[in-house]
Amino acid sequence: MKQSPPIELVSDPASLAHYGRDWTRFWSPAPSAVAFPTSTQEVVELVHWARQTRTALVPSGGRTGLSGGAVAAHGEVVVSLDRMRESLGLDSAEPSITVQAGMPVGELQRLATEAGWFYPVDWAAAGSSQVGGSIATNAGGIRVLRYGMTRNWVNGLTVVTGRGEVLELNRGLLKNNTGLDLRHLMIGSEGTLGIITEATMALTVPPPEQSVLLLGFTGLEAIMPVFERLRRGLQLSAFEFFDRAAAGYVGARSGKAFPLDPDCPCYALVEFDDPEQGNQDRALALFEELVESGLIADGTLSQSGAQAAELWAWREAISESLAEHVPYKNDLSVRIGRVTQFLSDLDALVACHYPDFEVVWFGHIGDGNLHMNVLKPADWSIEDFHRAGKALSPKVFKLVQEHGGSISAEHGVGLLKRDDLGWSRSAAELSMMSVIRAQFDPDGILNPGKMLPANLLSL
Amino acid sequence: MKQSPPIELVSDPASLAHYGRDWTRFWSPAPSAVAFPTSTQEVVELVHWARQTRTALVPSGGRTGLSGGAVAAHGEVVVSLDRMRESLGLDSAEPSITVQAGMPVGELQRLATEAGWFYPVDWAAAGSSQVGGSIATNAGGIRVLRYGMTRNWVNGLTVVTGRGEVLELNRGLLKNNTGLDLRHLMIGSEGTLGIITEATMALTVPPPEQSVLLLGFTGLEAIMPVFERLRRGLQLSAFEFFDRAAAGYVGARSGKAFPLDPDCPCYALVEFDDPEQGNQDRALALFEELVESGLIADGTLSQSGAQAAELWAWREAISESLAEHVPYKNDLSVRIGRVTQFLSDLDALVACHYPDFEVVWFGHIGDGNLHMNVLKPADWSIEDFHRAGKALSPKVFKLVQEHGGSISAEHGVGLLKRDDLGWSRSAAELSMMSVIRAQFDPDGILNPGKMLPANLLSL
Repeated sequence: MKQSPPIELVSDPASLAHYGRDWTRFWSPAPSAVAFPTSTQEVVELVHWARQTRTALVPSGGRTGLSGGAVAAHGEVVVSLDRMRESLGLDSAEPSITVQAGMPVGELQRLATEAGWFYPVDWAAAGSSQVGGSIATNAGGIRVLRYGMTRNWVNGLTVVTGRGEVLELNRGLLKNNTGLDLRHLMIGSEGTLGIITEATMALTVPPPEQSVLLLGFTGLEAIMPVFERLRRGLQLSAFEFFDRAAAGYVGARSGKAFPLDPDCPCYALVEFDDPEQGNQDRALALFEELVESGLIADGTLSQSGAQAAELWAWREAISESLAEHVPYKNDLSVRIGRVTQFLSDLDALVACHYPDFEVVWFGHIGDGNLHMNVLKPADWSIEDFHRAGKALSPKVFKLVQEHGGSISAEHGVGLLKRDDLGWSRSAAELSMMSVIRAQFDPDGILNPGKMLPANLLSL
Repeated sequence: MKQSPPIELVSDPASLAHYGRDWTRFWSPAPSAVAFPTSTQEVVELVHWARQTRTALVPSGGRTGLSGGAVAAHGEVVVSLDRMRESLGLDSAEPSITVQAGMPVGELQRLATEAGWFYPVDWAAAGSSQVGGSIATNAGGIRVLRYGMTRNWVNGLTVVTGRGEVLELNRGLLKNNTGLDLRHLMIGSEGTLGIITEATMALTVPPPEQSVLLLGFTGLEAIMPVFERLRRGLQLSAFEFFDRAAAGYVGARSGKAFPLDPDCPCYALVEFDDPEQGNQDRALALFEELVESGLIADGTLSQSGAQAAELWAWREAISESLAEHVPYKNDLSVRIGRVTQFLSDLDALVACHYPDFEVVWFGHIGDGNLHMNVLKPADWSIEDFHRAGKALSPKVFKLVQEHGGSISAEHGVGLLKRDDLGWSRSAAELSMMSVIRAQFDPDGILNPGKMLPANLLSL
């Protein structure tokens, strides 16, 4: 007799379609049902049931991921954390906040700010993404340069493993050297080791007022020298990059005029602490020095918060502006010192194999993280373009490997890159990952088919 | 035929005694030999030899540890990194520095400073401790409040596992979400998973000038409110604590007069950014406010770097000043909000069981990290006192457990606390740790008997 599930499963078509996909759109959602546990204990019971019935579970947060990590396309049961979104207490003495994993990251940010503190990890989808999902994917975002990835902010985790055991990892401690740190193994594990049900996240003091410099470079090779000079002179919170093409697409869509000379090969958006007039003066002096050294061709400095937001919009609207051109995207990183050479090698690679393709570049270049977007030529069919993208990928990944980089800087692996993981991780590492996974989830019920190459899963 | 070692082994009595111990003095050094590899490849060959001959290896850095993690007391071969201390390149674009694991941390700090950058993890033994050892033990130190533990600064690691495989973990990348982060598993693993041979460490901009406030509290319960107020008003880099007894022992040894009212129950040393006069004014205003609220009884603010160093000396000389009293030490942490209650519960516990014992407290209280020192009464024998300390430990650890804390905040586990790990980690966690260890070191040749309870090692 097949055991019945410990909590009600929802399986109307709208829910299956909604909870079966994330922001990637390459796979058709096809879960068999969706579960909405309301407590860690209910998650434990779900896992026990799944082990007994050999049911695959897909842990599901806000599903804003871009790698298919939360996609359920093969009859799995989605475990949505939507009904576990409560605050379990903000601790101003620490400061930290403990929340259920289904709380939206935007809500966590709001609660921190209300208490006079600050949760600094931020990205466009922060409002819809959930805390547990942001930890399971180790989300990055726009201020990694200053604050690091989500990993840096996790003081404690409650996790239900694939064995149905509840682990209380690190219990909110700031210092705890008692053996192997399993917490960090869980962060970025994409739901393959356990389901995160609660988390204690560190908070910090709110940063001072920020100013924004928008800079136009004289050439690609000017970016990194400018970055180093500005970093030594100002307290930076972001150093974001985009090329001429990206600015063009944003302008075409918004109808606004780009505030700088539109013919620079690339631009940077620089955000820095501006607690008093002194820092603006210093920024202007640095700017003049950079113009004189021939690195900067044009620039503008925000004079108010509203102007800073207007400048940010040129960076933030890029993804949306490219959407209608069906971009083939890649989220790559290399070490800072390799960025310039890597960019120009990759441009050359695409130009050589696909002279018809336009490549648009933007990203968190201060972290060595580049988002490469190849646009579909208007006269190509989507199918042909996807095929070409698929053929291009190994060439891109090979170049990433040659530059010692990562084929997934902040978006994770999921379904999208699991078979390509070998370009960034060695066989010994992949084998260790699969052994660890088998220990946390001996029956292979947690997010099967995600993160690790299929041929490793049978080990 | 027993295979001969791939590199010369040293076994003169002086070397055996020197390389067989760390800063703990509870175990008699008794290695069979010491190896001094000069490259990652030589470490690989050593590990292969050790597997074939079933030889136990003890990875050894500067051996400034306080938990016996680098002690060789059972005929092991010590693998000293003393001949692998070269810089492999400082990268100012990033900024980071790649070094061989045997480089002293103080040398790393010096190289960073020379290049106009800063390596911020620091502690009394930084000059003798080595980079690899600091990573293997996830060292903390005096500015964790601002900069975090060593873990936060590791961009990449080269490791030779117990299988003799070379892992290039994270290869210096700032962003890399390609599956499980084995780098963080290695950090704090105390030589039980692999031998770290090279590391890429992040650097940062040097902090501005620092000022120091020395404060005398009106009572234990004043510490945390003062900490929160100061943290919101100043950019703190340290918030260190010591009690009246600690100040007394330092004064008795140095012959200097304590600069504050010596009758406050406890004191804090507060270090903060002082880029211009404004912050000193703000610190003074905060100080007056805290005096008015009845939290602070006395205080002094450094007026120069020399004065700041003099004030720091009162905190830094504590360990040395207590040494002649044969302290029974514990390195404990709880969450910030529990510190006050924990301190007073622990005081009561010792007073109840050992009314003759004097307890001296100091530590990194801004991190929730307390160093508890119970002094040997003059008329007790060392043996009786050790026995009493041993009997006291489970009571202390039980209290730590009740407060959800850690029995080893920054010193690690080593030999000293391996059998007590269950007070801070669950059975499920310990079992997972032992399985992972067995994967990285299937023959159990790496630092056997350290970190995990003996009964788990046979799993």
